[in-house]
Amino acid sequence: MHPSNVPAEIPVTGKGLGAGPDPCWSILDGEVSLPVAVLRDSALQHNLAWMRDFIAAYGVELAPHGKTTMSPELFAMQLDAGAWGITLATAPQVRDAYRHGVRRVLMANQLVGRANMALIAELLRDPAFAFCCLVDSATNADALGAYFAERSQRLRLLLEIGVTGGRTGVRDDAQARAVLDAIARWPQSLALVGVETYEGVLKDEAGIRALLRRTVAIMQMLRDEGAFAEPRILLSGAGSAWYDVVAEEFADAAKNPDVQVLLRPGCYLTHDAGAYRDADARIHASNPVARSMAEGLRPALQLWACVQSVPEPGRAIVGLGKRDAAFDAGLPLPVLQHRPGDAAPQPAPSHWRLDAIMDQHAFLAIDADDDVQVGDMLCFDICHPCLTFDKWRHLLRVDDDWRVTGIVTTCF
Amino acid sequence: MHPSNVPAEIPVTGKGLGAGPDPCWSILDGEVSLPVAVLRDSALQHNLAWMRDFIAAYGVELAPHGKTTMSPELFAMQLDAGAWGITLATAPQVRDAYRHGVRRVLMANQLVGRANMALIAELLRDPAFAFCCLVDSATNADALGAYFAERSQRLRLLLEIGVTGGRTGVRDDAQARAVLDAIARWPQSLALVGVETYEGVLKDEAGIRALLRRTVAIMQMLRDEGAFAEPRILLSGAGSAWYDVVAEEFADAAKNPDVQVLLRPGCYLTHDAGAYRDADARIHASNPVARSMAEGLRPALQLWACVQSVPEPGRAIVGLGKRDAAFDAGLPLPVLQHRPGDAAPQPAPSHWRLDAIMDQHAFLAIDADDDVQVGDMLCFDICHPCLTFDKWRHLLRVDDDWRVTGIVTTCF
Repeated sequence: MHPSNVPAEIPVTGKGLGAGPDPCWSILDGEVSLPVAVLRDSALQHNLAWMRDFIAAYGVELAPHGKTTMSPELFAMQLDAGAWGITLATAPQVRDAYRHGVRRVLMANQLVGRANMALIAELLRDPAFAFCCLVDSATNADALGAYFAERSQRLRLLLEIGVTGGRTGVRDDAQARAVLDAIARWPQSLALVGVETYEGVLKDEAGIRALLRRTVAIMQMLRDEGAFAEPRILLSGAGSAWYDVVAEEFADAAKNPDVQVLLRPGCYLTHDAGAYRDADARIHASNPVARSMAEGLRPALQLWACVQSVPEPGRAIVGLGKRDAAFDAGLPLPVLQHRPGDAAPQPAPSHWRLDAIMDQHAFLAIDADDDVQVGDMLCFDICHPCLTFDKWRHLLRVDDDWRVTGIVTTCF
Repeated sequence: MHPSNVPAEIPVTGKGLGAGPDPCWSILDGEVSLPVAVLRDSALQHNLAWMRDFIAAYGVELAPHGKTTMSPELFAMQLDAGAWGITLATAPQVRDAYRHGVRRVLMANQLVGRANMALIAELLRDPAFAFCCLVDSATNADALGAYFAERSQRLRLLLEIGVTGGRTGVRDDAQARAVLDAIARWPQSLALVGVETYEGVLKDEAGIRALLRRTVAIMQMLRDEGAFAEPRILLSGAGSAWYDVVAEEFADAAKNPDVQVLLRPGCYLTHDAGAYRDADARIHASNPVARSMAEGLRPALQLWACVQSVPEPGRAIVGLGKRDAAFDAGLPLPVLQHRPGDAAPQPAPSHWRLDAIMDQHAFLAIDADDDVQVGDMLCFDICHPCLTFDKWRHLLRVDDDWRVTGIVTTCF
C-alpha cells in the first residue's frame, strides 16, 4: 500500500531522499541519502493531541506559528487537529500558505513595503480569506490606510503592545494613541480588530505576566471606548516557550464571548532537545493543566547522518553541517548509532557530543576506544526547529522503525 | 527587451520576488517584496575576471566550490569564465549539478553510505561525466571498492591529506599506507588519481604552508612509486581564504605537464564584507599577483530589507532575520538607506549596526536623532555567502541602478 501524504510526484532533486521510485524507503537499510531530516509520525500525533488538549483546557484557540515549518502538509495536520488558522511572519509566507489552502491567517508582524502590501491586497480579493496583521506606528497605519483605500479594500489590524528594549510594539499610551488616531483617519480602509503582544522578548516570568496584564488592560480600555470595528475582539500572544503563562493570563478574557484568544506557539509540533525541552520541563513543573497530562511534548524532528571519517583517536567527522541543522541554540545531540546490517540502532553513549560544526561537517567527540566506524549511521536530536526546517525542501515522515511513511515539503 | 538569464517561468511562490508578470522589477521603486537577496552584475563580472586572471598567472586551474551557491546559473557563469569544473560537497549536490549540465566534478568529501554511492553510480553510467572524490580510510576504500565492483564501475579517488586536530584526511604515513593498500585491493573498481588537502582547517600561514608542502611531497612520492592510475595526476587544495598561498605552494608542481592543479575557492564569486574581505586584504598586501591587480574582489551579494518599526529612540526593527542572512560570522552590515520616492539611496551612517538578530527580525542600533522611518529600505552587505545563499531559492541579479536583470535559482 502506498504511504499516505506522499506528494503525487516524488522529488528527484534535493538532499535527504531515497533513490528508488517507491518512497517506502528504509532509513536503517541505507535506502535514503544521508544526511536526512525526519519527522516521527508517533511524536507528531502525540504533540498535536497534547496541544489540542492543553488549548481546550483554557478555552482559547490555537493559531500555530507557521514560520517554524512553512510546510503545507504540516499546516494541514495542524488545522485538522483543530487549529483556528495559521500565524505567519511575512507577506510571501502568507501568500504561500494561501496557495496551499490556508484561509485564516494572523500575520504576527507589521505589513511594510509596497510589494508586500500588493501581495496581501491580491489575497484580500478572495472574500473567504480572513486576514489580520499588526500595527505599531502611525506612519505604518497611514501608509496602509492610503494603500488599501486606493484599492477599496479594508485591512484588519491588531494593535501591537511592546516593551522598552524589546522588539516591535507600542511602548506607552502616547504611542498607542498615535496609532489609534492614524487608524481612525482611514475608516474605509483600516479596521482595528484586536490587540497583540509577543512575550518571548522577555526572559523573566514576572515581566512576562506584567506585559500580558497590560495587554489585557489595553484591550479592555479600547473595548470600553468602542475602538474595535468588529463585535468579536481578537487578543493574541504566545511564542513556543511561554504559551502556558499566556494561557493562564488570557483565560479570564477568553470567558467573554466577545473576546477570541489566539495563542501562537509554533515549535510544539516538532519540539526539540534544546530550549523548548527546557521550557517543557518548566511548564510541566508549574502549569496545573500540563501537570495533569501524562507526559510532555516529544522531539519529532531528527537528523540521520553518516560517519565519514574517524581520522584520529577521539574524533569522528560526521556528514552533517550548518547546511542541515540549526546551530544557534545548541548543536545537534547524538541519540542513536546504527551500523548497516545490524538489526536495530543502539543508544548513543551519553558522553558523545558534537563540539564543532562547519558548513557540511560536524565534529563528534568520542572516547578513543569507542566503537565508531566510517559508514556508521547516527541519529541526532536537534535544537531550534525553525532554523532546521529552513535547511530542507523535503522532510521524510517515518514510523517507529524508521521506515518512510510520507514526504512533507517546505516553502521557504 | 527581456533580461538575460531569466528562467523561462517566473516563480510565483517564495520570498524576494516581484509581484508583476514582467521581471524587469525596480528594487528602489518598491516593486520587489523585501527582504530580497540580490547579486550585482557588475561585481559578479569583476570577480569572475579577477579570479580568472589570478588563476592563469599561476598556471593552475579553478574548480570553484559549488556548495557556496548551489546555483546552476552561477555554475554556468563560472564555467563560461574558464573554470575546469565544479567542486561539490555531497552526492545530492553532485546529482543536482549534473542535472543542470555540469560534467566535471571534484567531490571534496568522502563518499559514504549506500544511497549516496547509488547516486554517484547512476551518474557514472554517463561516460561523459568526469568525477572524483576523496578517501582517507581503508574502511571507506573497501566499501567503495566492493560497491562499484558489483556494478562493474570504476571510481576515481584522491587521497586526502589532513592534520591532527583538523577535519578529514590521513594524519600520517601509516594511515596513508593503509588507504593505499585498500585501494590496491580493488584494481577493477578503484583508481587513485591524485592527492588533496584542505588547508582551511588551519589558521596560521606557517602551518598551512607546511601542510601544502607535505601534500606535494606525498604526491611526488606516490608518483615515483607508480601509485597513480592515470597519466595526469590531480593535486588539489584551497578554500576561499588561503587560495593565494595554495597557488604559491602548488605553482612549481603545476609546471609539470603530468600534474593538474585544481584550486577550489567558492566564495570569490560573491565575496563578502566579513572574513573574506579580511582575507582579500591580506592577499592584496602579500601576494605579488594580487598586488599587481588594480583592486580586489567586490561584494556582489547584498540584502535589501524594510524598516518595520522604530519603536523607541535609538532602535529600528528591520524585516530581515536568520531566515534570510548568515549570522555565524558577523551580522549583515547596513550600507545604504533609501526612502521610497527619493531619487537614489544614500550611504548608511557608519555608526549604524545590527546588534541582534532573530528568525525574522534584525535590531538596528541608531542614534536617537537619526532620520529613520518605518518603510525606509536598507541595503546590507553580508558576512559568509554560503549560509546566506542557502536561505534563498531565488536571488535577483541587479544592475547598478538596482533594476532586476535576471533571476538565479539555488538547489539546496
